Parts: sequence; structure tokens; C-alpha cells
Amino acid sequence: MQRTLSIEASQKIGQDIQVSGWVQARRDLGKLIFIDLRDRKSLIQVIFVPGEASEASYKLAKEIRPEFVIEVVGLVQERNKKNINSDLPTGGVEILAKELKILSRAKTPPFEVDKDSKEVSEDIRLKYRYLDLRTERMAKNLKIRHKTLSFMRKFFEDNDFLEVQTPILTKSTPEGARDFIVPSRRHAGKFYALPQSPQQYKQLLMIAGVERYFQIAPCMRDEDARADRSPGEFYQLDMEMSFASQDEIMEMVEKLMVELVANIFPDKKMTFEKFPRLGWSECQKKYKTDKPDLRQNKENPHELAFCWVIDWPLFEPEMEDGHFAPAHHMFTRPRDEDLPVLDQDPAKARSYQMDLVLNGCEVGGGSLRIHDARVQEKIFDLIGFDAEQKKYFSHMLEALDYGAPPHGGIAPGVERLLAILLAEESIREVVAFPKSGDARDLTVGAPSEIGAGQLSEAHISVKKASGPTGRSHRSSSRPEGKNKK
Amino acid sequence: MQRTLSIEASQKIGQDIQVSGWVQARRDLGKLIFIDLRDRKSLIQVIFVPGEASEASYKLAKEIRPEFVIEVVGLVQERNKKNINSDLPTGGVEILAKELKILSRAKTPPFEVDKDSKEVSEDIRLKYRYLDLRTERMAKNLKIRHKTLSFMRKFFEDNDFLEVQTPILTKSTPEGARDFIVPSRRHAGKFYALPQSPQQYKQLLMIAGVERYFQIAPCMRDEDARADRSPGEFYQLDMEMSFASQDEIMEMVEKLMVELVANIFPDKKMTFEKFPRLGWSECQKKYKTDKPDLRQNKENPHELAFCWVIDWPLFEPEMEDGHFAPAHHMFTRPRDEDLPVLDQDPAKARSYQMDLVLNGCEVGGGSLRIHDARVQEKIFDLIGFDAEQKKYFSHMLEALDYGAPPHGGIAPGVERLLAILLAEESIREVVAFPKSGDARDLTVGAPSEIGAGQLSEAHISVKKASGPTGRSHRSSSRPEGKNKK
Repeated sequence: MQRTLSIEASQKIGQDIQVSGWVQARRDLGKLIFIDLRDRKSLIQVIFVPGEASEASYKLAKEIRPEFVIEVVGLVQERNKKNINSDLPTGGVEILAKELKILSRAKTPPFEVDKDSKEVSEDIRLKYRYLDLRTERMAKNLKIRHKTLSFMRKFFEDNDFLEVQTPILTKSTPEGARDFIVPSRRHAGKFYALPQSPQQYKQLLMIAGVERYFQIAPCMRDEDARADRSPGEFYQLDMEMSFASQDEIMEMVEKLMVELVANIFPDKKMTFEKFPRLGWSECQKKYKTDKPDLRQNKENPHELAFCWVIDWPLFEPEMEDGHFAPAHHMFTRPRDEDLPVLDQDPAKARSYQMDLVLNGCEVGGGSLRIHDARVQEKIFDLIGFDAEQKKYFSHMLEALDYGAPPHGGIAPGVERLLAILLAEESIREVVAFPKSGDARDLTVGAPSEIGAGQLSEAHISVKKASGPTGRSHRSSSRPEGKNKK
Repeated sequence: MQRTLSIEASQKIGQDIQVSGWVQARRDLGKLIFIDLRDRKSLIQVIFVPGEASEASYKLAKEIRPEFVIEVVGLVQERNKKNINSDLPTGGVEILAKELKILSRAKTPPFEVDKDSKEVSEDIRLKYRYLDLRTERMAKNLKIRHKTLSFMRKFFEDNDFLEVQTPILTKSTPEGARDFIVPSRRHAGKFYALPQSPQQYKQLLMIAGVERYFQIAPCMRDEDARADRSPGEFYQLDMEMSFASQDEIMEMVEKLMVELVANIFPDKKMTFEKFPRLGWSECQKKYKTDKPDLRQNKENPHELAFCWVIDWPLFEPEMEDGHFAPAHHMFTRPRDEDLPVLDQDPAKARSYQMDLVLNGCEVGGGSLRIHDARVQEKIFDLIGFDAEQKKYFSHMLEALDYGAPPHGGIAPGVERLLAILLAEESIREVVAFPKSGDARDLTVGAPSEIGAGQLSEAHISVKKASGPTGRSHRSSSRPEGKNKK
């Protein structure tokens, strides 16, 4: 017999069906055994009655414990009016069991999966993530994440964007946050780096003529954890447009956010239908922050106040060595009217950076990019790159010389955005298998020690610890953009 | 003025529009200058005529060279009947230029981007990938890849599958191909591994109750290149189902392939609407291969002959040390009726493996998985895992004890499938930025040397080469499944 989902049972009253799933709860009421059976759609009530269930099945039903996986064949019947459970979509029916099969037994879980796991220690939740994800809230978070990403993809497709996958094994560059590095077997002593963002590739795609690109892109940064930052990996909704003004890019993203909220989060209240655009200076002056929280009621997590912060300074304040670190990243385009300022007083130059802010959090950093090799090289000089460091980016400088269109884009952080939309305090609540605060995967046990053969193939050896771990930081002689994206 | 796409010009006859894009070709015919302008949709003809174009623009037009990026404002006019170019969707109109802006100049490209780049050296194509992707064939390949992935996602969504992103930084395990390893900064001497496939995570998602999962999953294997294998990274259409029979999984995948071909590749000829299912033994006997090419005309790349190979042996032939390597991977479920055989003659046990074969290529390996910890442990024993090696998988054994549903799935290789569907000889033709045969990214120059500070933060040092590189292989004392997926 084919399986029927719990949710479809009410269309099969009077018929025998087969249901399968997990035992959410079992109640023995004298001779009657009640089971709440859980599948991916809902719970449904199953009753074992002596005489109705086969003798073997009734006996087996006594062995059932929570989280057992079972398969039941039985008759769908309407419940008495007074027994209807209006909290459940299946609450009008129940299944009178005839045959039972135990597909898999279960030990007692380390925490109750029929309750919210918020109060359970996070280490336990992460170790037994496959149990944590059975809880209603976490299962819902996964579903909404899927719906959100699906909506984003459809939005960009409908707007004629091309989705392109960019490399995971790429090049370490002296910019941004700390790279994860991957030793090469084929090229002894050389390393790949995992992408902190597909920034260079998406710009190369613009030079390739793609014009409109997006990707739900995996990004890896070796940074320490924060509530709004994964230590390790995260996804960004990476997009880039050619021949578009800063206004047009912002309008595209604004339209996406408005439609996303209306479709997937209809209960949310938008403070502004049209997102305010704040100049960085006035924003700093008025709100003492570049991430203002513009909600009317700052305590209300269901209010969504999006805004843009624009007209950023191109650089952070001048460093002691006379160089400049980019406020956004080194590919951000200076405002046309400020190009002359680069020669006079670089700290005063403003850029075409635009940050999308939601409820006081930066959920996406974007900008127009430099599409002129001369300007790009000038920025490298101001940052303080020497010839060696410029060589890291020689491919970008060269590419700009083969017909680069004006372009720009943005990359909202998927988890950060979702955490706010789902009113979750930590981004780990919207990730299936997040790293713990100290960057471990507690579910499978990573990182772990590896064999000498693997090290040898990678042409590396492990250094004996010479100091405290987890505190070192990148050589400060290397210029660093904040590269917030 | 807002930009108009080339393809929309014919709806604006008699109006002034602005178009932007790349110069595909320029022809000077005495006073008239003809430009073929290329944007993401098409080519369109632009004419500069003295007196019609502003003086400055006409002068500037003389400077235009192929691959310059320009912006033109001009009048859309119908072409004379005899000048209509029916090869182009825009061939009925042309733009009489008034104003010209050169947005970006271009050096002479190292190869012609208005021709197919098949004959160009691959190293040059990869170094200048942003130029190669401007060619018609490569631009089309990127678009079809996007459409294909989008179709797959929609198919699974429509069938109630949940898309879940699984970790990129995960655990090295003694199975399958060679891992890429990533040193941990926080945990000195420990390493992450990049996933060869999300196999364990998708099984954990089944245990978590997801029931139907899919992901276009990035996978990384440090293997040497072949025409049908990327050295490094690739994507697989990863899917997994609970409570489904092997037949139901095959039917789901078959339906996807049939609908995909009908929608995205309508010109292809399917040899079979219903894919033949061949037992492994009979297949070996009849075709001397486990990847038979069942096309009626083996020379026809536009014929598609899908088939299934099922009833595989669980193990490869017994090894000299009395142990067994899995034919598929160590999580593959032995056929129920062959469970007793595991104690008597393991080499004779068959499994619930099913390979999807297309035109003589394996495009996807799948199986039902073990959902019983006792069976899983028995397989580990037969493979020859010692206690230490079993510990690598202790999380899987433990998870199976908390209510694991019967489940199975498959993971067709995205690039391999696309290369066949697009009749491309190499999978690199369907990847935006593929690695070269020796696993380098020639576009950005990876892998590369990195700074001493980065090595030190990762607690590793580079070993002096002690022999030829690129030839070493994994210690043969480690059990290895072929893990074909």
C-alpha cells in the first residue's frame, strides 16, 4: 500500500490508508493506546483498540516509545464532534489502527523534541542536531529558509538575472577578513583560499557580459563568532548589475525585500514602504551610528524598518603610515565628483557605497565598482599595496582593460536577514548544521586530527603550538579593508 | 534616459532610445560607420552618419574598436526590406546614432570573441575566461546551465522537497576519494575537510524528519582531472527521500529527467521514454560494462539513452587482507534477502544501489541507505575498520539509534549531465570558472603562495618537497570505498 501523508487523511474518511512517521507521544488509556504520529506535514492521531488492531500489532503497540519510527495501516474515521482538535489540520479525523510495523526504534532523546529547544544547552542541541531539527520551531525555520531562498531566486530570474556558480577553491588575497586556506597536493607549497565572497568573480562576470548575475553564494571567513556572524561559513545573496545606476540597484533590492516580506512574512509590519536613504554624515550626526534602528517601536521584533545608508567615505581615517583602508572594499568606486579629491585629500573622498540596514543591523553592503584600471590602481596605491601585493590583483587590472562595463551590486547576508525576519536572536537558529561558537561542527565532530599520509600529500606539517591559540591575528603589515560583506 | 535592451528596440520604432553594450564589429563604409552592438540579449546594428550624429560623437565613433563598451542614444528606424537580417531577432531595425559615449576601452583580445573559441588553446581561454564567456556558445552554455538548475529546483519544490544547505567546512573521513583539508586556526593541529558530497548530512536530515531533501550541492574532491571529472570542485544534484522504495526514488528521478529534456532540451531524441532497468550481472554479461550506451545510433550526440543499473554487488571482490571495499559507499543498504549472506559470503551480497546511466556515462549513483546501526556496524567490520576508524563515524551510528526512517537517494553530477545534454566534450565547457587539468584557476591564479603569517595562524608549515609532486596517493592502509557519487 502506498503511503498517505497525515495531512491527506481527512480526504480518505472510510478508507484504509498507510501512514508512517515518528511517534510524538503515546498515551495508554486502559485498553486504548493513543499515538500522535508525526510526519513532515503534521501530527495525526492513531488509536490501537484490541480486536480492531491485529493481535500482533496491538502487542507491538505496547512497545512503542517516543521517536520510534512506525508504519501503520488503518481506517480513517471522523472524530466525535467533542473530540475534534481544532489546533491540528488533521484534528477532525483519527486512524483506527489495524496493522503496525516498527521501522526503527529510538533511545530516549537527550531533550524533548515535542517542545521548543530554546532552553536546552546549545552544545547538546548541536551535537544532536538531527533531534533538534525535529522540533516544531526548527523545522519551521528550515522551511522558511527554503521558501525565502526560493523566492529570492525566482525574483531574480523574473528580472532576467543569470545564476552562476563561482569557485570554492580560489585565491588568497591580502584583503578583507581572514581566509581559510587549503593546501594544494598538485602544487607543493601553494594554497587555495575559500572565498570570503565571490566579489572578484562577479566583477569578472560583469566584464564577461553577463550584465545581471546572482547567486546564493557560500562564503567562508575565519572570523570569531558573534550572534550575527557565523564563525566559518555563511551564505550571501550575491548580485551584480551592469549599466545600472546606484539608484537602480537599490530599487531592485528594495523591490525584492518588499515582495519577500509581503509573500513569505505577511504578518510583519513594514515601517516604510519606501526605504529612507540616509547620507552617511547626516546618519552619523543624527543617530550616532551607521546602522540606525528606525523602528517606531524599538522593542517590536515584528516591525521591519529598512533603510539605506549612502554617500559613505571611501576610506577609513588615514593610518599612521599615511595609507588608507577602504571603508567597504578596495573595488568600491569613488564618486565621480570626488575623483580629483583622491589626489588632494583622500580621506575626504566619498564612494558609491550603499548599505542596507534593517532594525539597526547591516544586512547587506553594496557599491558601484571601479571599472577603470587607472582608478583601481590608484586605490591600490592609496591602500599602500607594493608591487608584490598588486600582483595578487593583476588579473583584475588586466580584465578591466578589455572592455569593462560600469557595474555594481550588493550581497545581503542570508542568515542575518533570516534571523531578523524570523525574530531569532542567533543566526545559528536559521542554519541546519551551524558551527559552534568556537567553530566546531559538534554533529560530526569537526575539525579533527588527520592522518600523516594526508598531511604529507598536502605537503604540510603541523607546527607545535608556541603560544595561545585562537588569539593570533593577521599580520598588521597587510592592508585590510573591512570588507563587511 | 533609461537603457533599452537591443531586443526591445523593434517595439520603439520612431523613438529615440539609449542602448549600451560591447562592440562586436565595426565597419567603415566611406562616411557611414556601422557598429554591431552586443548586449546580453542580442546584437543590434547602429549607424553613425555625419550630420545625424553630433560632431563629437561622429568623431568618437572613429575611435571605436571591437570590445569597447559604449552607450548610444539614437533613433530606432526600420531597415529597408532588402537590408533586413533575418538571422537576428533585432534584424528588422537599426539605430541611427545621435550621441555616443565610450564607457570603457578595450585592448585587442587575445582571441576573437565573435567566433567559437573551441580552437583556441584552453590555457588562454581559461586565463581570459571573461573574454571566453563573451562568445556565443559559452554564453549560451551558462544560460542553459542556469535554466537547467532552475528547472531542477522547481521540480523538487513542486514535489515537496526541502532545499537545505549543508556545511562546507566538515570532517575528514576515511572513505571515498581524497579530501581537501583546511587547517583550523582555533584548534591547532586539527583540520576540516571540504565535503566530497553531503552524504552524511543528508542522511542526518532524513533522521531529522525532513523526509524529502535536495540541494544543488558544491562538492570537492582532490582527484586528477578527466574529461568528465573536474579536478577539484563540482556540483551534484543531491536528493534524499524517506519512506520511499527504490522504485519510487527511481521514478522521481526519471520523471525529472524526462520533463527536463522535454522543457529545456526539446530537440533531443529520447531513446526510451521509460528507462530500462538492467540488473548489474546481466548488464555485465550482455554489454561487458556497468555503463552501457543504449543509443540506437551511438554516433548521435542528440540521442539520449537513459537507463538504470540495479542489483549491484554490495562489495568489490574480497581484498587480500580478507576485507571488502564497498562498490558504492559504506552507507549503501544490503538487499534484505541478502542480509544473511553477509555472514556467509559477503562478496555475494547484493545492494540497493542504482546508477543512472546516460549514453554510456554514469551520471548519478544512488542507493537505499542503511538505517539500522547494527547493520551499519557490520558493514564497518567487513570493510575492516578498527575501533579508531569506527570512531570517525560514531555520530552516524549514534544517530541511527534515535529513530532513523528507511531512506535513500541519488546525486546526479550536474556538470556531467549538462555536458552530455549540451553535447560538449569536456565538463569545463559548462562551468563558468573551471580549474585547468592540473587543478589551477588560471583566471585569478590559484593556488598561490601565501604569507608566513597565514601559515603560522593555521599552525602549519610547508614541507620541503621530497619527491615528485602530484603522484602521491592516499595511504593504501586506509579502506576506501569508490564512493562514485
